[in-house]
Amino acid sequence: MLEPHRIKHCRQCGSAVDYRIPADDNRERAVCPSCATVHYENPINVVGTVPVWGEQVLLCRRAIEPRHGLWTLPAGFLELGETVEAGALRETVEEAGANVELQELFTVLSVVRVGQVHLFYRARMLDVSLDPGPETLEARLFHEHEVPWDEIAFRTVRETLKHFFDCRRSGHFALHCGDIG
Amino acid sequence: MLEPHRIKHCRQCGSAVDYRIPADDNRERAVCPSCATVHYENPINVVGTVPVWGEQVLLCRRAIEPRHGLWTLPAGFLELGETVEAGALRETVEEAGANVELQELFTVLSVVRVGQVHLFYRARMLDVSLDPGPETLEARLFHEHEVPWDEIAFRTVRETLKHFFDCRRSGHFALHCGDIG
Repeated sequence: MLEPHRIKHCRQCGSAVDYRIPADDNRERAVCPSCATVHYENPINVVGTVPVWGEQVLLCRRAIEPRHGLWTLPAGFLELGETVEAGALRETVEEAGANVELQELFTVLSVVRVGQVHLFYRARMLDVSLDPGPETLEARLFHEHEVPWDEIAFRTVRETLKHFFDCRRSGHFALHCGDIG
Repeated sequence: MLEPHRIKHCRQCGSAVDYRIPADDNRERAVCPSCATVHYENPINVVGTVPVWGEQVLLCRRAIEPRHGLWTLPAGFLELGETVEAGALRETVEEAGANVELQELFTVLSVVRVGQVHLFYRARMLDVSLDPGPETLEARLFHEHEVPWDEIAFRTVRETLKHFFDCRRSGHFALHCGDIG
């Protein structure tokens, strides 16, 4: 859950901020009473992939909190200096060491409660070599009937996986936008 | 252009920050030497719509900087507490006062230089009533041959409009992901 009023001090001058609605705005912001800097906070993007090898999808077991020990698709925060696609690829390399080719954007899921938007691309694995990074305990391929549904780390990952298998059954892969309450 | 090292002070305690790579990270962050808060900065989302009425699209002439006086699709920063779809709808109401029904996600464009991701939805106008807000000088409908291509405020808007008219000619609307250098 997002902590309210988590900005206590001005990033520009260090003064304690006030919370008020700036003159040309309609939302409460952290405003510096000394230097007038207005601090905006906006949702951030988590970008990742659904890496596919034949009938199998690649999942990573998390070596970090939150959800240590649970399974996820490779994904992480989009960084400044990279495109959405580059970020999704980077996370796939960092977390799984997988060699993939990015395909279409597949899910865009707003997670309002934590101020995030999760974007997953389908990705074609070019080989089965894996080299999990320090954030991953193990990475392995799963057939649909093997997916550990009760040990999936995040609801956006579950929804993306379900949508993937639904699409594959229907023979048509379509973008899915939605929100996770 | 993104200003480097624009966080000068810790948001938690107000101390002057250092820039260094935290132990479990691989990127330089603003780190507080007093309370150890790590400050992450990530790309933010701009969300908007391509409002369509018959053969025409709706554009808004900007009453604010940057690009005062130039034409844009209704769009703005996604706020905490709303989904991507809700943000796109809100901006369409705030900037144009248009009454629309959201359709498919249509473009996802990374603008790395300024640390933004722009997401546009197609939207069906339900009537022609418009009520531009304070950020808009005027809002009006344009046939393709009337679009003021030399007075478009942002490259993501130009690319989204070009993609829209290309799709309409081809008879098939498809999601376009890309980046604006």
